[in-house]
Amino acid sequence: MNTNLAMLPLLSLLLLLAASPAAALVQDFCVADLKSADTPAGYPCKSVTSVTVEDFAFAGLGAPGNTTNIIKAAVTPAFVGQFPGFNGLGLSMARLDLALGGVIPLHTHPAASEVLFVAQGTICAGFISSGANKVYLKSLNRGEIMVFPQGLLHFQFNSGKGPALGFVAFSSHNPGLQITDFALFANDLPSEVVEKVTFLDDAQVKKLKGVLGGSG
Amino acid sequence: MNTNLAMLPLLSLLLLLAASPAAALVQDFCVADLKSADTPAGYPCKSVTSVTVEDFAFAGLGAPGNTTNIIKAAVTPAFVGQFPGFNGLGLSMARLDLALGGVIPLHTHPAASEVLFVAQGTICAGFISSGANKVYLKSLNRGEIMVFPQGLLHFQFNSGKGPALGFVAFSSHNPGLQITDFALFANDLPSEVVEKVTFLDDAQVKKLKGVLGGSG
Amino acid sequence: MNTNLAMLPLLSLLLLLAASPAAALVQDFCVADLKSADTPAGYPCKSVTSVTVEDFAFAGLGAPGNTTNIIKAAVTPAFVGQFPGFNGLGLSMARLDLALGGVIPLHTHPAASEVLFVAQGTICAGFISSGANKVYLKSLNRGEIMVFPQGLLHFQFNSGKGPALGFVAFSSHNPGLQITDFALFANDLPSEVVEKVTFLDDAQVKKLKGVLGGSG
Amino acid sequence: MNTNLAMLPLLSLLLLLAASPAAALVQDFCVADLKSADTPAGYPCKSVTSVTVEDFAFAGLGAPGNTTNIIKAAVTPAFVGQFPGFNGLGLSMARLDLALGGVIPLHTHPAASEVLFVAQGTICAGFISSGANKVYLKSLNRGEIMVFPQGLLHFQFNSGKGPALGFVAFSSHNPGLQITDFALFANDLPSEVVEKVTFLDDAQVKKLKGVLGGSG
Amino acid sequence: MNTNLAMLPLLSLLLLLAASPAAALVQDFCVADLKSADTPAGYPCKSVTSVTVEDFAFAGLGAPGNTTNIIKAAVTPAFVGQFPGFNGLGLSMARLDLALGGVIPLHTHPAASEVLFVAQGTICAGFISSGANKVYLKSLNRGEIMVFPQGLLHFQFNSGKGPALGFVAFSSHNPGLQITDFALFANDLPSEVVEKVTFLDDAQVKKLKGVLGGSG
Amino acid sequence: MNTNLAMLPLLSLLLLLAASPAAALVQDFCVADLKSADTPAGYPCKSVTSVTVEDFAFAGLGAPGNTTNIIKAAVTPAFVGQFPGFNGLGLSMARLDLALGGVIPLHTHPAASEVLFVAQGTICAGFISSGANKVYLKSLNRGEIMVFPQGLLHFQFNSGKGPALGFVAFSSHNPGLQITDFALFANDLPSEVVEKVTFLDDAQVKKLKGVLGGSG
Repeated sequence: MNTNLAMLPLLSLLLLLAASPAAALVQDFCVADLKSADTPAGYPCKSVTSVTVEDFAFAGLGAPGNTTNIIKAAVTPAFVGQFPGFNGLGLSMARLDLALGGVIPLHTHPAASEVLFVAQGTICAGFISSGANKVYLKSLNRGEIMVFPQGLLHFQFNSGKGPALGFVAFSSHNPGLQITDFALFANDLPSEVVEKVTFLDDAQVKKLKGVLGGSG
Repeated sequence: MNTNLAMLPLLSLLLLLAASPAAALVQDFCVADLKSADTPAGYPCKSVTSVTVEDFAFAGLGAPGNTTNIIKAAVTPAFVGQFPGFNGLGLSMARLDLALGGVIPLHTHPAASEVLFVAQGTICAGFISSGANKVYLKSLNRGEIMVFPQGLLHFQFNSGKGPALGFVAFSSHNPGLQITDFALFANDLPSEVVEKVTFLDDAQVKKLKGVLGGSG
Repeated sequence: MNTNLAMLPLLSLLLLLAASPAAALVQDFCVADLKSADTPAGYPCKSVTSVTVEDFAFAGLGAPGNTTNIIKAAVTPAFVGQFPGFNGLGLSMARLDLALGGVIPLHTHPAASEVLFVAQGTICAGFISSGANKVYLKSLNRGEIMVFPQGLLHFQFNSGKGPALGFVAFSSHNPGLQITDFALFANDLPSEVVEKVTFLDDAQVKKLKGVLGGSG
Repeated sequence: MNTNLAMLPLLSLLLLLAASPAAALVQDFCVADLKSADTPAGYPCKSVTSVTVEDFAFAGLGAPGNTTNIIKAAVTPAFVGQFPGFNGLGLSMARLDLALGGVIPLHTHPAASEVLFVAQGTICAGFISSGANKVYLKSLNRGEIMVFPQGLLHFQFNSGKGPALGFVAFSSHNPGLQITDFALFANDLPSEVVEKVTFLDDAQVKKLKGVLGGSG
Repeated sequence: MNTNLAMLPLLSLLLLLAASPAAALVQDFCVADLKSADTPAGYPCKSVTSVTVEDFAFAGLGAPGNTTNIIKAAVTPAFVGQFPGFNGLGLSMARLDLALGGVIPLHTHPAASEVLFVAQGTICAGFISSGANKVYLKSLNRGEIMVFPQGLLHFQFNSGKGPALGFVAFSSHNPGLQITDFALFANDLPSEVVEKVTFLDDAQVKKLKGVLGGSG
Repeated sequence: MNTNLAMLPLLSLLLLLAASPAAALVQDFCVADLKSADTPAGYPCKSVTSVTVEDFAFAGLGAPGNTTNIIKAAVTPAFVGQFPGFNGLGLSMARLDLALGGVIPLHTHPAASEVLFVAQGTICAGFISSGANKVYLKSLNRGEIMVFPQGLLHFQFNSGKGPALGFVAFSSHNPGLQITDFALFANDLPSEVVEKVTFLDDAQVKKLKGVLGGSG
């Protein structure tokens, strides 16, 4: 049998499915076109004909963030805004660099659960449950992972004797990141409102508003 | 320590996360841009830079609907079409005004479950299960709530001695509202088809088509 | 035609669909059996044969909560734990009673968006976005509604000259409620950890831990 | 190279992944254990060790339903209650037999969209939109398909000159089936309530209650 | 009572809900506008005012596919790309024509579960589980159905003595179709990579690359 | 003011919400009880009173897998079966150890997208689209990430000059893992069926069945 010729009809099937105008519309992924307006399910897709493997790879987590700051830490996000290949796939990542004494302050991700992988050093991580306000706190060594359920307050800090490095993955292409201190002190929310809803003292609020650039 | 200066790097982190071009794309909500085409998950989002608190607030449920009509009732919706702030958040609302004897006719919401809160008077509400055609019927007083599972036929009527007022919330920004009588009698569905699929008598169908403006 | 007899086969269809052992398993709702273990999608369903209309109605939001406390406010939840009829339907509710000066402290709902309806008085409500830490703050009068996107920090306080009453609906049967102060100060999270992750002063932390019953 | 021996470590990997106690828990499907209580996401899974190919195949749609009844039609469901292999897979089916003049009465599926495939004869099918009460009505010949969006009222009837046969697929393992006439007339919903919420005449309601076995 | 006049206010309610500019935005379906960019949840919706019943019906599955090819089979898809009415409804279909000896080669649908209905002849179908690599294989006669869980490798072939015909439904408007042979041999994936990741011999890989038009 | 006493009512609110029998049912997470039957949404939850921080942490990815095997590679999973804390949170992980020349063979995850992070060495990774059978292939260095859309065939192999280490995260607690070779050759799927659905030669099939322990 001249297989090459005999198989041509199979090729035709391939063409039928893959090269017809309709099939050209079908895609297995939806690389974000960040210039279009977002939707509740994610960004519109970049044309599949212009998608290359570079749309699915990202090098931005390879370099350490700058930790010469007051928290001695840096968060480098790879959310859909930085890495459009995540769009609609229910995943994103970030890199956590923690110098000696470094802290990722109390925060939530409104739209995702998180898993932390410790790549270097020792990181103490914790979250607080909403129902019973119970604290789940643990010091994690290299190679250990910990999961933080969606929307719950959590934090990480370097509890070792040298720098620490972590990588986190999220269950959404756009997990959000709400740092409690920034939400309270880095904007124009009036101090009296902050005090009313947190029971913090006026001096404390004004001190942190000053530090974080807030007004009111 | 001069905290204000020392904290500047923290501010830098803030700026990194919040003010970079990529972060500007990230949003926690998606106020509907009703002028764009809808998608299966909701409307594209209005630009976050033009969003204000007014996009998240709505006053349209504050005023009574006009109940001087044959059903002695009014439904005032706050679906995504009226209140774009609901877009993608899995919620919407409506106000039910029921004068003495008022009735919200038999209907379904194809895309949402509903909870009714009785704010004034007494409302008799009911739904019918699909499997066993079982009736769940109850007279609700002020302060009571009742839930209507998604897609099931239900109704509400004023069973008290004065006006009644209810507010309903839905589990979708666009619950839909299919009033059985309007579906059958307020369009051009041929009477013979209506009769064939409902077993209603011809006179009955034609009477209600006449009343509700249907033809055919 | 003797319709009653002629219709018997139709009844047979009804019986086929509704009364066969298999059909008895089919249900349109899933009232929670709270004695069984929860699952990621909600509680197992109570047997449909024991479900009555009382499973779908709830009177617990009808009575004012006790506001003679330090926040001069009360939250009365109707989550799945209180009202099992909400199970799996993507909805729940709560009642907010705010005496003069009453405050619902800063909090999030990790698993739901929220809509507030002001039933009486004037309530000032606000939330803070995660991306830009922007404050969305508004004073709402009777009949006005405001929506709070999922997982974002928000608060409500009575900004009027008399008592205020609000009702809120959520986009989940189990929205969760994480009050920031309780998460930080009402448990055994060590003060030094609280300080490290919030930048609050030691005296402030210890004062609030004392007030809220925390230790450590 | 003695490949068989060399490959043994690969086999070990296989065993690691597939035969460890933990992996035995992992499954790609969840055949319903109908004797356990349902959950909002479907039935608990039958033990994977007892699952055979017979759990994924179903012969019940192969035989015609009995159409010697008043609607001259029969619906044979293959929902999760009849075919447990559909559990959790977002699919179910049914067979529609329509003798000459046969009718599937007005109904909805509260939890699924539907697609109809006409296998024999001619079927006139229609649905009504909720927003505008617009009728979408079409006569379908053998080989044609039509889709009915979730939760909307629809119907099918034999518009040809011989028997018709259709198969429908649903986007849920448990779509539900609410026949409007059965919901109104085949139970104990009081006639005065039916009349109040449908505007039907008392005689019409009582006639159909009589026919369909309803009371009240 | 002059019902016609009295009912006019009811008509007003109808108009309120159905004809206001806001309500015009509300829709129960979302027929794909294939000329717009796709999103993770599906295509933007065609304007509801231009939607007709023809958008919900499709005749393309009525005609047999051409089976005079090497697999003696044809797959005719009705995915969203061919039938835009499926957009967002969680359903699609395809027709399988299998001449004597015809085969639908090993493949997966990355985004959907599938149910096969045998309309004519005998089809042997099988899938393989991921955890235990267990084979679920069965010969299906006319009228029988079989379900293939999402993402698992499966195949169908004509095991009867004449032509066979099947129809399949999917739990997504865009299930995808990845034919293993095409993925490996019908593109420019280097042979050495194919061999490395499949353990196939070089001659085998090159033979099939030749047949299927692959390079490298 | 004696704050401690004055705050007692606030504590009462805390108790109301957190310690009532109903609230005890509410949880923010659902650690899998692996001894109970799975459901389509995941395992039933372990009692919240027995949950500790150890349920949210996992050390099993810290140690290298054994790569002294024919693929010179090891996959160490942290799916819900190994790490019950992932249950219902839409996340899981695995560790990939690749000795020099190591290969993770062609496979899919039927239920999840995947992101790969290269922790050491150089890994060449690729996936193939379903529509156009297009190959997306890239060599990734330390610190680079690549995303593999749900359900698509992909592979990874060590393309560097020393050992490589990768960590992957998935968008499901139970992503599944279907290795194409195991699906075809490591079970009792008859050789003639394998050949029919893959076009592989008989000798090739029998060779690999021999190597991988398959029969038939």
